[in-house]
Amino acid sequence: MQTLNVALGERSYPIYIGDGLLTHPELLLPGLAQKKAAVITNTTVAGLYLDPLTAVLGKHGVEVIPVVLPDGEKYKNWETLNLIFDTLLSHHCERKTAVIALGGGVIGDLAGFAAAVYMRGVPFIQIPTTLLAQVDSSIGGKTAINHPQGKNLIGAFYQPKLVLADTDTLNSLPEREFCAGLAEVIKYGLIRDEAFFDWLERNVEKLLKHDSEALAYAIKRSCENKAAVVAADERESGMRALLNLGHTFGHAIETGKGYGSWLHGEAIAAGTLLAARLSRGMGLIGETEVERITSLYRRAKLPVSAPDLGANRYLQLMGLDKKVESGRIRFILLKKIGEAFITADVPEELVTATLSGIAANA
Amino acid sequence: MQTLNVALGERSYPIYIGDGLLTHPELLLPGLAQKKAAVITNTTVAGLYLDPLTAVLGKHGVEVIPVVLPDGEKYKNWETLNLIFDTLLSHHCERKTAVIALGGGVIGDLAGFAAAVYMRGVPFIQIPTTLLAQVDSSIGGKTAINHPQGKNLIGAFYQPKLVLADTDTLNSLPEREFCAGLAEVIKYGLIRDEAFFDWLERNVEKLLKHDSEALAYAIKRSCENKAAVVAADERESGMRALLNLGHTFGHAIETGKGYGSWLHGEAIAAGTLLAARLSRGMGLIGETEVERITSLYRRAKLPVSAPDLGANRYLQLMGLDKKVESGRIRFILLKKIGEAFITADVPEELVTATLSGIAANA
Repeated sequence: MQTLNVALGERSYPIYIGDGLLTHPELLLPGLAQKKAAVITNTTVAGLYLDPLTAVLGKHGVEVIPVVLPDGEKYKNWETLNLIFDTLLSHHCERKTAVIALGGGVIGDLAGFAAAVYMRGVPFIQIPTTLLAQVDSSIGGKTAINHPQGKNLIGAFYQPKLVLADTDTLNSLPEREFCAGLAEVIKYGLIRDEAFFDWLERNVEKLLKHDSEALAYAIKRSCENKAAVVAADERESGMRALLNLGHTFGHAIETGKGYGSWLHGEAIAAGTLLAARLSRGMGLIGETEVERITSLYRRAKLPVSAPDLGANRYLQLMGLDKKVESGRIRFILLKKIGEAFITADVPEELVTATLSGIAANA
Repeated sequence: MQTLNVALGERSYPIYIGDGLLTHPELLLPGLAQKKAAVITNTTVAGLYLDPLTAVLGKHGVEVIPVVLPDGEKYKNWETLNLIFDTLLSHHCERKTAVIALGGGVIGDLAGFAAAVYMRGVPFIQIPTTLLAQVDSSIGGKTAINHPQGKNLIGAFYQPKLVLADTDTLNSLPEREFCAGLAEVIKYGLIRDEAFFDWLERNVEKLLKHDSEALAYAIKRSCENKAAVVAADERESGMRALLNLGHTFGHAIETGKGYGSWLHGEAIAAGTLLAARLSRGMGLIGETEVERITSLYRRAKLPVSAPDLGANRYLQLMGLDKKVESGRIRFILLKKIGEAFITADVPEELVTATLSGIAANA
């Protein structure tokens, strides 16, 4: 087992990474302030991991209140959040009753936001069961629900008490979702860890085969990168925005295509390639770098072209993105592989040209 | 003008108290991160203060987006919150766009919660226009909406950038609401400031006449007490719960009678008398103290008897209160006038006896 620490002062917390951790109650129990916990999960994950988790907690006298939600990004909304509140209230959950997220990014975001606002905040534990959640969404305290006008528009920064990443749970993950998670792994290489990008170029096939040593290394290295960025900028006032490489375009893809038709990681891969092409248009990186990124995505079975929504629709969708400042869109661009930066200083013609080039690149 | 500081480390903020502050832009402008702000208010307050505030901000180049909500506690719900989100989104409000609450406690709670979760948190400013909001709800960062199962069940701790209490706005307040605010003023005397309780016994009639010197003193002293408690315990893990004197019973009254039929301060006065009688039943205070409190409430034109909902209905309503720990109700009781404490060690028979005594005391 690997242990990392997210250094956030009084809100610091550990991330545990390893095989079979789901049934290690000694890791979970310190996160519970009372012998009662609500486990938020979905119909798919419940069938796989709810019983073992409930059993192990039950053995230690913890009453488990299961909240099994429908599966899918389209349920990350106020109605589903209210289902959680209703269950917590009907079971008399109190301020000390922990909320445990057992599932992927959608469950983590929903359960985390519920924990953040139920009774103005209750203890929260993340047990991510997808690659994307283990390397990204479970770490750093971002929680949210979607709004008809855009993704993650309503939410909170709310840190968990601990994160338990059981790598065994990835064996039940559909390949398409596993690959979508690789998009976020690759992101860390692109924004701040060139050596990791190089390593991924050498080892991506091992990851696709779920080679356990390679997988543990990739998850740990991803978490280290994320933890370092979050520790430096918890509330995304500065460098944390680097983690959003590809997300301005990516969110537009997800919203434009309707939540759920593209997986988040797939949209991020396509969005990152748009950001890379925009960086190329700005003269920051060369065609070689765009090709290296494209090639790694292709080997990771990720999309290498964005959907052709039309440049105007993209611009409209991006105008509602949270990364907007005083009416100008801020972009995360690449100076090189391993170094991203934030800028609002991008000529709109270049953005339009990049978006107009989608059809040509498809 | 008086200035107090709420000492919360990086979340510290000033409270300004005085005549005519609403049109002092030099106090407001430092709280704005960009020249754009949404002003959340209600139909009643908008007619009185929205135009002057908009004009003074406009003079300094600040674009104001007015959000005028229906007036009343019954609108402190998810639907109204969504009206705020829709307006913020349709005006492209960003992470740096401030949300200003212009109104009483309901507006402050709604606008504060909207600010806490819109885009995971935007700058927030409180301009309380009722006595209750100026001495209590605008200070300390508690925000929330109601749930059909209880008051303030969904919310966040979210501190404002500043609080601007313009005592002139109290001149437009209906007497019933002004008196309801006095219940919270008296509360500070009861829980931690005996000298202030004595002062209130000598000066309550002056306050009812809006004597400006007495009023400024009472507001400042109330804010000082609240700021000290909040600074010591921001997230209500300990002594902050003292501020809830009378609230366990009071919330049961509000919920049991339907939101809005009793004003919050009225329910708190009746609830505090129940807490005082329970303290008397525990042998903590004598009949003299109960009489002193009753008399001060009566002079402040506040209710001195609780509605007779039946003991069982009260117990049921209190079981869902946030101040519950491991299935036991925690009570805030009085050791004497000027000293409250928290205890879960109250025999249920005594609670039932106190509640059953309501009909006799009515």
